[in-house]
Amino acid sequence: MTFKVGIIGGTGYGGAELLRLLSSHPDVTLSFVTSRGEAGRGVNELWSTLPYIDLQFQHPDDVDFSSVDVVFSAAPNGVAMQSAREIVAAGAKLIDLSADFRFKDKNEYKKWYKFEHACPELLVNAAYGIPELFKEDIKSASVIGCAGCYATAMQIGTAPAVVHGLNRAGATIIADGKSGVSGAGRGAVVANLYGEVSENFRAYNATAHRHGPEVENSLFKLSGTRQKLVFVPHLLPMIRGIETTIYIESNGESSDQIQKIYEDYYSQSAFVEVMPWGSHPETRMVRGTNNIFIALHQQENSNTIIVLVVEDNLIKGAAGQAVQAFNLAFNLHETRGLTGRPLAV
Amino acid sequence: MTFKVGIIGGTGYGGAELLRLLSSHPDVTLSFVTSRGEAGRGVNELWSTLPYIDLQFQHPDDVDFSSVDVVFSAAPNGVAMQSAREIVAAGAKLIDLSADFRFKDKNEYKKWYKFEHACPELLVNAAYGIPELFKEDIKSASVIGCAGCYATAMQIGTAPAVVHGLNRAGATIIADGKSGVSGAGRGAVVANLYGEVSENFRAYNATAHRHGPEVENSLFKLSGTRQKLVFVPHLLPMIRGIETTIYIESNGESSDQIQKIYEDYYSQSAFVEVMPWGSHPETRMVRGTNNIFIALHQQENSNTIIVLVVEDNLIKGAAGQAVQAFNLAFNLHETRGLTGRPLAV
Amino acid sequence: MTFKVGIIGGTGYGGAELLRLLSSHPDVTLSFVTSRGEAGRGVNELWSTLPYIDLQFQHPDDVDFSSVDVVFSAAPNGVAMQSAREIVAAGAKLIDLSADFRFKDKNEYKKWYKFEHACPELLVNAAYGIPELFKEDIKSASVIGCAGCYATAMQIGTAPAVVHGLNRAGATIIADGKSGVSGAGRGAVVANLYGEVSENFRAYNATAHRHGPEVENSLFKLSGTRQKLVFVPHLLPMIRGIETTIYIESNGESSDQIQKIYEDYYSQSAFVEVMPWGSHPETRMVRGTNNIFIALHQQENSNTIIVLVVEDNLIKGAAGQAVQAFNLAFNLHETRGLTGRPLAV
Amino acid sequence: MTFKVGIIGGTGYGGAELLRLLSSHPDVTLSFVTSRGEAGRGVNELWSTLPYIDLQFQHPDDVDFSSVDVVFSAAPNGVAMQSAREIVAAGAKLIDLSADFRFKDKNEYKKWYKFEHACPELLVNAAYGIPELFKEDIKSASVIGCAGCYATAMQIGTAPAVVHGLNRAGATIIADGKSGVSGAGRGAVVANLYGEVSENFRAYNATAHRHGPEVENSLFKLSGTRQKLVFVPHLLPMIRGIETTIYIESNGESSDQIQKIYEDYYSQSAFVEVMPWGSHPETRMVRGTNNIFIALHQQENSNTIIVLVVEDNLIKGAAGQAVQAFNLAFNLHETRGLTGRPLAV
Repeated sequence: MTFKVGIIGGTGYGGAELLRLLSSHPDVTLSFVTSRGEAGRGVNELWSTLPYIDLQFQHPDDVDFSSVDVVFSAAPNGVAMQSAREIVAAGAKLIDLSADFRFKDKNEYKKWYKFEHACPELLVNAAYGIPELFKEDIKSASVIGCAGCYATAMQIGTAPAVVHGLNRAGATIIADGKSGVSGAGRGAVVANLYGEVSENFRAYNATAHRHGPEVENSLFKLSGTRQKLVFVPHLLPMIRGIETTIYIESNGESSDQIQKIYEDYYSQSAFVEVMPWGSHPETRMVRGTNNIFIALHQQENSNTIIVLVVEDNLIKGAAGQAVQAFNLAFNLHETRGLTGRPLAV
Repeated sequence: MTFKVGIIGGTGYGGAELLRLLSSHPDVTLSFVTSRGEAGRGVNELWSTLPYIDLQFQHPDDVDFSSVDVVFSAAPNGVAMQSAREIVAAGAKLIDLSADFRFKDKNEYKKWYKFEHACPELLVNAAYGIPELFKEDIKSASVIGCAGCYATAMQIGTAPAVVHGLNRAGATIIADGKSGVSGAGRGAVVANLYGEVSENFRAYNATAHRHGPEVENSLFKLSGTRQKLVFVPHLLPMIRGIETTIYIESNGESSDQIQKIYEDYYSQSAFVEVMPWGSHPETRMVRGTNNIFIALHQQENSNTIIVLVVEDNLIKGAAGQAVQAFNLAFNLHETRGLTGRPLAV
Repeated sequence: MTFKVGIIGGTGYGGAELLRLLSSHPDVTLSFVTSRGEAGRGVNELWSTLPYIDLQFQHPDDVDFSSVDVVFSAAPNGVAMQSAREIVAAGAKLIDLSADFRFKDKNEYKKWYKFEHACPELLVNAAYGIPELFKEDIKSASVIGCAGCYATAMQIGTAPAVVHGLNRAGATIIADGKSGVSGAGRGAVVANLYGEVSENFRAYNATAHRHGPEVENSLFKLSGTRQKLVFVPHLLPMIRGIETTIYIESNGESSDQIQKIYEDYYSQSAFVEVMPWGSHPETRMVRGTNNIFIALHQQENSNTIIVLVVEDNLIKGAAGQAVQAFNLAFNLHETRGLTGRPLAV
Repeated sequence: MTFKVGIIGGTGYGGAELLRLLSSHPDVTLSFVTSRGEAGRGVNELWSTLPYIDLQFQHPDDVDFSSVDVVFSAAPNGVAMQSAREIVAAGAKLIDLSADFRFKDKNEYKKWYKFEHACPELLVNAAYGIPELFKEDIKSASVIGCAGCYATAMQIGTAPAVVHGLNRAGATIIADGKSGVSGAGRGAVVANLYGEVSENFRAYNATAHRHGPEVENSLFKLSGTRQKLVFVPHLLPMIRGIETTIYIESNGESSDQIQKIYEDYYSQSAFVEVMPWGSHPETRMVRGTNNIFIALHQQENSNTIIVLVVEDNLIKGAAGQAVQAFNLAFNLHETRGLTGRPLAV
């Protein structure tokens, strides 16, 4: 049997990767994909790279949520929550790639995203979608709010340390993130033109970012302790890939101890690879895949644990993570439809 | 009057930029450029972008140091020190872009660069070439060991904080550096091929780097205190430009205090621009120029000062810094020959 | 003495390069720059790479054309002709970078650009702005319609052949053009996003283009013969630079004859460099400069002359060409303010 | 059952893609991969993007060709022919990605590749490996000399026209080719460094190239007529992808006739897609796939047929084509193991 799947919003990069992944997923039948602006147009007209997808965008008002088992939303923040009640009432699950279901607290959501939350009762029960950290929540939830790209890299890279108390109490964790430009979406804005991005590099939102509190919530849930975190994102002159270098002040544990804690923590995770101590992961190792590669370092006479984390921001940071959550929620093997490998170069 | 200038090593990216800058410098006559491998070949045969330079590479044995006022060396580590005594004896100054004259202590040099130093007596008296920090030394020295690209960005970005005691005693300063690939030179190595660098990003040398101790020495000289520093370099998929994000734990000073300290520190520096608090410098702002742009940030509920620093690794990080040192050493205005502006895009 | 200069439209890439060039031009004082959308904003707020320009955008209604000697227009097609009569009446010259004054015939303009021409009487007397080909027209004209980037490369590359009858009568000239994405302007359109352009290559407008007829007119004027031309443009994953490979069927002339005709044709042109027979020009050789490099080839047993042409699309293909025309129109040396050199790498 | 496969040379980009494709091929067991320089090293040490391949490079002297059904060679020109007799004698087929078996005539091979051919008797009977054009030859041959990347694009794009006599007799066919830099291999040469390739574009080998005669031979075999061809290759600042724009002077056929001839010609070809008249294929449409996309254009008042062709130079232009030939030679469906799809962006 296959599951019937609908997609809200398939005109962004995350939506396109979702279309690509789900169209190849052995247990999925694609029922519909919506777009207000592109209704009536073929998916393959908008996406020259998806010529094999024979589906037209439909207006959101024209789709029937009761006809599908699950709805993925790849629409911007503020959209999925508008339809969430209807989807759940129709008996379908909702897997959202936006920020709409990432917080427990509607006030915190409003603080960072400015919208009044449309369905706080669903918010409270939504699972936070990082399968490596919250697998049981995801299995049983009706609504899953997938973590975003930076937040996933930070949490996967930090969780073993804070859960096992490697980090010195009170010390600030530093996360220096670098992302390919697809993370900013496919909106037509000057800042993302080729002429502005190529041969250029810069930090952005260095004073305030909304992924920090999300990560702090999650680390608190995992470790029982509030962690101080400083996160600065940077824009890379490339399309895909995130690298985050995390600096954690330790209590003096040895490299062997640290390495073992990380390896044990992810020993059952199909997509997380803890490389040998002192390795240097590259974003191309994970391009087009749902994998996260991690490597650990310490410098001479220093107690700072350096955690290098790479992921594909559109897969593990968006569409792939959503498919992974879907697999768990529908009792499929976690890796179904997610076995893509990077090109050799 | 113009000064006669010789160049040792003009086949790397730093050497080419030196050739470009010096050939336009109003007070310079280019006398010779050496290369063992390319002797007899025209500079403009090797460098399609320097068609206007009418000079042939000469074998190093064929040049007469007494015919010039100054010798720049853009050769690899270990080369300049072989000729340093001869140059100084001939009455010329030596401005070296390599690491040969960056340390005071020959043992430290040997530890990091593996060579026995060839002229430790010159090492002791060499000036460390960051004009913004050590101007008087540079003016009077016979030998100037220019700081490298990462080290310059780190020191310019950190000096005001440590000199004025903004950083909490004992706390580690984190410097997360990202450099365009020209910083790795023009050597024919697989790791720097287009196919390996484009659409890819990674940290390298995360466990050990030789710029750390150099920076620590310098900050000690400036502040009188040993600072702990963790530096991790990363390779950007672009040709030119360095961005370094520095994280300094403060004692709780206000943003106004911090900003003022930085602005005052560089108020007399022609090339250092402290942008308004909360700005985001981009590497393209300084491309092709000798400028460094700095911006400062702090996040809510955090005592971490975030310092964003950008420079052109081949100009302020190499050839331009050397020309700036030359200007000082020969009593010219610091900006002579260094007024190039970036392309608009 | 300096000339007072106004600019219409400084928010695109061409306008920015014009601002950069004119702000460094020794005989120019920048009086105003207009923008409807950005009026009141500082130039250096819009352009992070032009921090040294201390000028605010003014609304076009707020400027006085009689206060300046010359007005450059870097606005989109259809804008300059709206103000042309007023500019000329005020006694200023108009140098337009758009297509508004590239044709003699208002009907031809309308056919390709869809607008009714606003001042056909000025159109008839406007000079066509390629200084290498129409210098005398430019010197005496009140209105100069600068040729665009592709058209310039094609005409400079083809003129010596058609003027000297190297091309076989009746044979089609093929021009295969490739341009960096800045040629498409700074408009916020999806097709020019980094995510769409990087690691991608394609032809566009292969069936119809409006530069063909413009070039055909010009070659007819120069040679007295109508030439058949097929031109296909392509989009390069880079910011700046045009390379056009032109295929001309010859009458069997020798390589020496062909090379001599090209060299002689441009012997007095400061910006056109005919490289030695069989060379391969690169776009980086001319980046940031007003130069055009040309090289010629023929293959074994073939009468096809292969002409390789490179230029910087924003300089020789736009802003630089306009400044060059200005120099001529105001009796300055052709190279004033245009001596910029490319970075070494 | 699966076929046992050996690979000669897996250290270049073509070899790596071959390793990637064959390791996922449902009918293949990888038996060995050889390298003189890397013998003893793990494939996944050399290729960070192939961590899942658990195979060590073996010295070529240590492998037994009789243990496999087929040997692919991705070694440089001149290598495969040294082992060809031994491979064939051992009862295995040889599928070579180099030029060693692309000609019928050993003198022609020597003229272009400078080597004396090591086994001319195998050369005579080798199949020329473009499955769309020479399928029956491939099915029955012991040795298959796969066509290279440029040659494949040119022949697939030209064959329908010349076979059906669309091209005017005696007129030269122009092919303007542009390739990503991976086509130049993974050798450590300065010209392929990121610093030399990025933000740069140029033609190369414009006077003489060795793919021209190969293509002419093939078009002669298909059409019975010698065609004149001028081909100029260009280097793109991107890793993967070839676009070739071909200009064919027609006898005046209509667009409908031309389109129909192309569509019919490839109606049975799984990998060749003739797009609707007037389309613009992009290299990213075929990235990571074995597909070739073609589109046709004609301009007003012109008899020049414009053929736009895109392919992935490492797949359809190298490793994928070899796997396709393997499928045919072993009676498998042509598309086995070649169903990879491009990333959405």
